[in-house]
Amino acid sequence: MVESRLTGPVRVVGVGLLGTSIALGLRARGVDVILSDASPTNVSIAIDYGAGRSATDGDDPQLVVVCVPPDVTASVIVRELSAYPRSVVTDVASVKKPILDAVIAAGGDITRYVGSHPLAGREKGGPMAGRADLFLGRPWVVAGHEAISYQTASAVDDLILDLGATLVEMTADEHDSSVALVSHAPQVISTLMARRLVSAPEAAVALAGGGLRDVTRIAASDPALWVQILGANATPTAEVLRGVRDDLDDVIAALEAAAAPAAATAAATDAAGPSTAPATSWRLTLAHTLDGGNAGVARIPGKHGQDKRYAQLVVMVDDAPGELARLLTEMGEEGVNLEDLRLEHSPGAQIGLAEIAVLPEAVEKLTVALAARGWRIAG
Amino acid sequence: MVESRLTGPVRVVGVGLLGTSIALGLRARGVDVILSDASPTNVSIAIDYGAGRSATDGDDPQLVVVCVPPDVTASVIVRELSAYPRSVVTDVASVKKPILDAVIAAGGDITRYVGSHPLAGREKGGPMAGRADLFLGRPWVVAGHEAISYQTASAVDDLILDLGATLVEMTADEHDSSVALVSHAPQVISTLMARRLVSAPEAAVALAGGGLRDVTRIAASDPALWVQILGANATPTAEVLRGVRDDLDDVIAALEAAAAPAAATAAATDAAGPSTAPATSWRLTLAHTLDGGNAGVARIPGKHGQDKRYAQLVVMVDDAPGELARLLTEMGEEGVNLEDLRLEHSPGAQIGLAEIAVLPEAVEKLTVALAARGWRIAG
Repeated sequence: MVESRLTGPVRVVGVGLLGTSIALGLRARGVDVILSDASPTNVSIAIDYGAGRSATDGDDPQLVVVCVPPDVTASVIVRELSAYPRSVVTDVASVKKPILDAVIAAGGDITRYVGSHPLAGREKGGPMAGRADLFLGRPWVVAGHEAISYQTASAVDDLILDLGATLVEMTADEHDSSVALVSHAPQVISTLMARRLVSAPEAAVALAGGGLRDVTRIAASDPALWVQILGANATPTAEVLRGVRDDLDDVIAALEAAAAPAAATAAATDAAGPSTAPATSWRLTLAHTLDGGNAGVARIPGKHGQDKRYAQLVVMVDDAPGELARLLTEMGEEGVNLEDLRLEHSPGAQIGLAEIAVLPEAVEKLTVALAARGWRIAG
Repeated sequence: MVESRLTGPVRVVGVGLLGTSIALGLRARGVDVILSDASPTNVSIAIDYGAGRSATDGDDPQLVVVCVPPDVTASVIVRELSAYPRSVVTDVASVKKPILDAVIAAGGDITRYVGSHPLAGREKGGPMAGRADLFLGRPWVVAGHEAISYQTASAVDDLILDLGATLVEMTADEHDSSVALVSHAPQVISTLMARRLVSAPEAAVALAGGGLRDVTRIAASDPALWVQILGANATPTAEVLRGVRDDLDDVIAALEAAAAPAAATAAATDAAGPSTAPATSWRLTLAHTLDGGNAGVARIPGKHGQDKRYAQLVVMVDDAPGELARLLTEMGEEGVNLEDLRLEHSPGAQIGLAEIAVLPEAVEKLTVALAARGWRIAG
């Protein structure tokens, strides 16, 4: 068993996906974990799952981790600070400043509270979805403030390092602006696009491809949870969305200009030969916007197919049992490790495309080797 | 060799990804294919690639397929109609009404022209990216009009069926509204979200997860091509985007209401115990919007993880060579076919999650079998 930095016990309040995953990760390092939840059934499930034990009188946890929904997080923090007057308390909610403010407003002892937020988690909740390694390699923000000492807050650092996550230090405000940008605004944007499909003709929706699927995937997220998250981080999220709206206004105006009679005449002229008209301002607006999208997406680390650390190879794979397995086995035989994989697969088609990411130095050798083994390389 | 419906010859004008793929697909069925391109180099590459032959005097094609960029499509159609007065002409551009209008305005003989649009293609272009099976199982719209006879237009139907695509009939207007919804507006939306990242702090971008990556993936598309596409389909795209803007205005107003002093007081009250305040209107607006996103995304066919035809299984896979291959091999040994696969993989993590889609009737058996073989099932 790997030694833990935390000495324990650690009390986990709320055994949903995050709470159970934290508990399982700590148990794997031998830490004494106490489980608590508003639902006794959930506690029983989590105990059966090996995530820890139930609370007893006289518990004196080193650390309390509050993993309850955002709208009750502040009140539970205040309650735990009061119930365990020697314990350090943290939480894992996806907003930090409103919770800190609410804890202060309710008179909570913030010399023992520091908020945190693991950037991990999947769409499915509940203790059954918990996994000891949910946080491996993921960023975990600690939202420090002036009232807690470095020494006291170090218990939260230890929690993060014990779970294999990457510690990121930010103020609560920096955190909330950051997640508004990378998580909360994208949720709204995805939702708004998906919402256009509600009243669309069946024939239109039937033309949907991978682009629309990707843009709208997170629109399937739980509305009740997201009302809480967006409400709690309203100001920074609105700020990002106002930026989107300004750009959207520009794009709509450019499209309306493109559709205006002058542009239509230009299109008709095009039919008689290449146009000699200079680029009009609507073209410049669209080009500028699209260029900005290119530049923005290039900044995202670990982006599928964009990750500069990897080279991409596209291999055609027959839609037969074992064919993809055979491809990956043969890659292994060539000594090449798969860094990432994406399967593109049209419904009803007899073939799929495996987009394989490998280290750049391996791509040439692998291309030659796979072609020699009869695989069709598509790009 | 499978027999073709088309008798040929077929003249393909423009040997980029789509033109070359069409040519390769027809060659695979033994059709005589004539290749033409503004770039003689591209024609040479495509010929070397087995996509067809160069043009000769006296060519009398049954069908001409125009596969050039949207801004020159109409002029090339008019030229081809005139150069080959016995041939049926189609094109594959992603907008249909402006092209039909421009061909009519330029005096093209539309009794022999009908536009079409295959919903296929990848981000990479050029003849080297061409694949004979690019269109297998993909929708391919024929944008019929009154001036061409059923008999004449049937050559285009034959092309589509020969290439294994699914024939979809729509008017040019219906087509353009549909692709504005499922392709052109999503491109703009993805771009606008990505654009917010350009001036973001490095620490914020470092928190990006899979949701942002998915929403912004297509923002990496080619700006020059998309200026043409959006400009050509400006009116229907602007209509979809005005709908998005109306919803966005509502969301921003709801967030501003949530951030207003009254809501802040309610949040502070929450800290003292569960709030008893009734749902305020900003909550209802957000819930309504998010519900609409759920409903919209549920309409998309073949959606990853949402496809009602498949059941989802998440298996933990160590980041070691051959581990994913072993999983897929063992699935094959259990007689279960993989319908779709998505790999979730944190940079630096020692483990990945393989999200496997299988037929619903197979999921229980497979879960038991994989667990018995020692695989960890995460959900």
